[in-house]
Amino acid sequence: MEIQHHMYSPRYVNLSNFGPNLLSGDTIFAIFGSCSILVIIISWVLSGRFTKTTKLERLLICWFIYNGVLDLTVKLSFLLNPDFYKDTSGNYFAEIWKEFSKGDLRYASLDSAVVCVHGMSILIGGLNCLFAVYAIATHKSYNLVLQLTISLWHCYGFTMYYLTAILDGSLHHSGNPFYFYAYFIGTKSPWALIPLLILIRCWRKICESEIRNKRKIQ
Amino acid sequence: MEIQHHMYSPRYVNLSNFGPNLLSGDTIFAIFGSCSILVIIISWVLSGRFTKTTKLERLLICWFIYNGVLDLTVKLSFLLNPDFYKDTSGNYFAEIWKEFSKGDLRYASLDSAVVCVHGMSILIGGLNCLFAVYAIATHKSYNLVLQLTISLWHCYGFTMYYLTAILDGSLHHSGNPFYFYAYFIGTKSPWALIPLLILIRCWRKICESEIRNKRKIQ
Repeated sequence: MEIQHHMYSPRYVNLSNFGPNLLSGDTIFAIFGSCSILVIIISWVLSGRFTKTTKLERLLICWFIYNGVLDLTVKLSFLLNPDFYKDTSGNYFAEIWKEFSKGDLRYASLDSAVVCVHGMSILIGGLNCLFAVYAIATHKSYNLVLQLTISLWHCYGFTMYYLTAILDGSLHHSGNPFYFYAYFIGTKSPWALIPLLILIRCWRKICESEIRNKRKIQ
Repeated sequence: MEIQHHMYSPRYVNLSNFGPNLLSGDTIFAIFGSCSILVIIISWVLSGRFTKTTKLERLLICWFIYNGVLDLTVKLSFLLNPDFYKDTSGNYFAEIWKEFSKGDLRYASLDSAVVCVHGMSILIGGLNCLFAVYAIATHKSYNLVLQLTISLWHCYGFTMYYLTAILDGSLHHSGNPFYFYAYFIGTKSPWALIPLLILIRCWRKICESEIRNKRKIQ
């Protein structure tokens, strides 16, 4: 069996017809960062102009729009083009996944746990995040429980991602410490902290609402 | 490399020092079924005697006690004794996992996705299920949101379990159709239906509570 010379770690994993990155890591993340900031700024401005919401609710709108857009573009492209590592056309989405695989080879080798976590993220996250934006903006009764469900889903996915990495020994597979801390840990860390904060807020608000109702019934 | 003659499918997977079942499948599931029925009957009787709850709430108490006990005994034994397939002492928990692996070899081969789903099931389910029983019985304000959190986890775990099986090709690994339908599909199916029903009920109740609160504020 011919072992292709890809740039990922561990080197012995066979990725036939591997096509190296055409864009540098800096360029890829500069584009990604600019687009992310743009989406957040547009969300912030539009939520201020078209909705009657508090500043915290506007931040939540930004978070859910950002997640919805991310799920339905970057993450969806991973599922639609699982052979991204063979790409030689310079497709930006293939470039970003090739770069990201330097932090975790399981993307390029299509590890079933990673594919499932992503698939389920898109399934539940994608459209539901945009639906949550509508619910927050129009103060729907299901607004809190929907936010709680999506955030719990993010927390479950996050935990599954790292637990399977620990068990598979993929923790040591990042090519060098930069990829490990920047890609494998850094890019994921907001999805540990923010969903947890939203979760706590929704949990408290739902409980307060229950207590208020009980008091009124008594 | 020496290939041991275990009884699972696919046969080529190497499980060294494999010890065959000492109890028959019928005996194992007769004990399991009897214990399950016993736990449910005791839960039903105790919930009727010691709590002021509706019949539906008593059914929920039975479900969560059953899950808590299952997580903290059978499922926990899988994590504490991952080499169960080597057991020759007749340990009942090892026997049950050896039997269950006939439907899905991933238990015996310690597939990381299956181990993680079980680990998180114990982490999220185990004690929280018993905590949910306390919350339902004493009508705590967090009762619904806790039930929703646990049930969403059950749905997440269930989907991960089957999605990873489909991607890994483990769907075709059951030794024969009986093990496939009875073990791989049959024993898991309650964890698709019941958590989904609980989820829908909690969602509705939380929304109703929000609507009632809003009306009172207006």
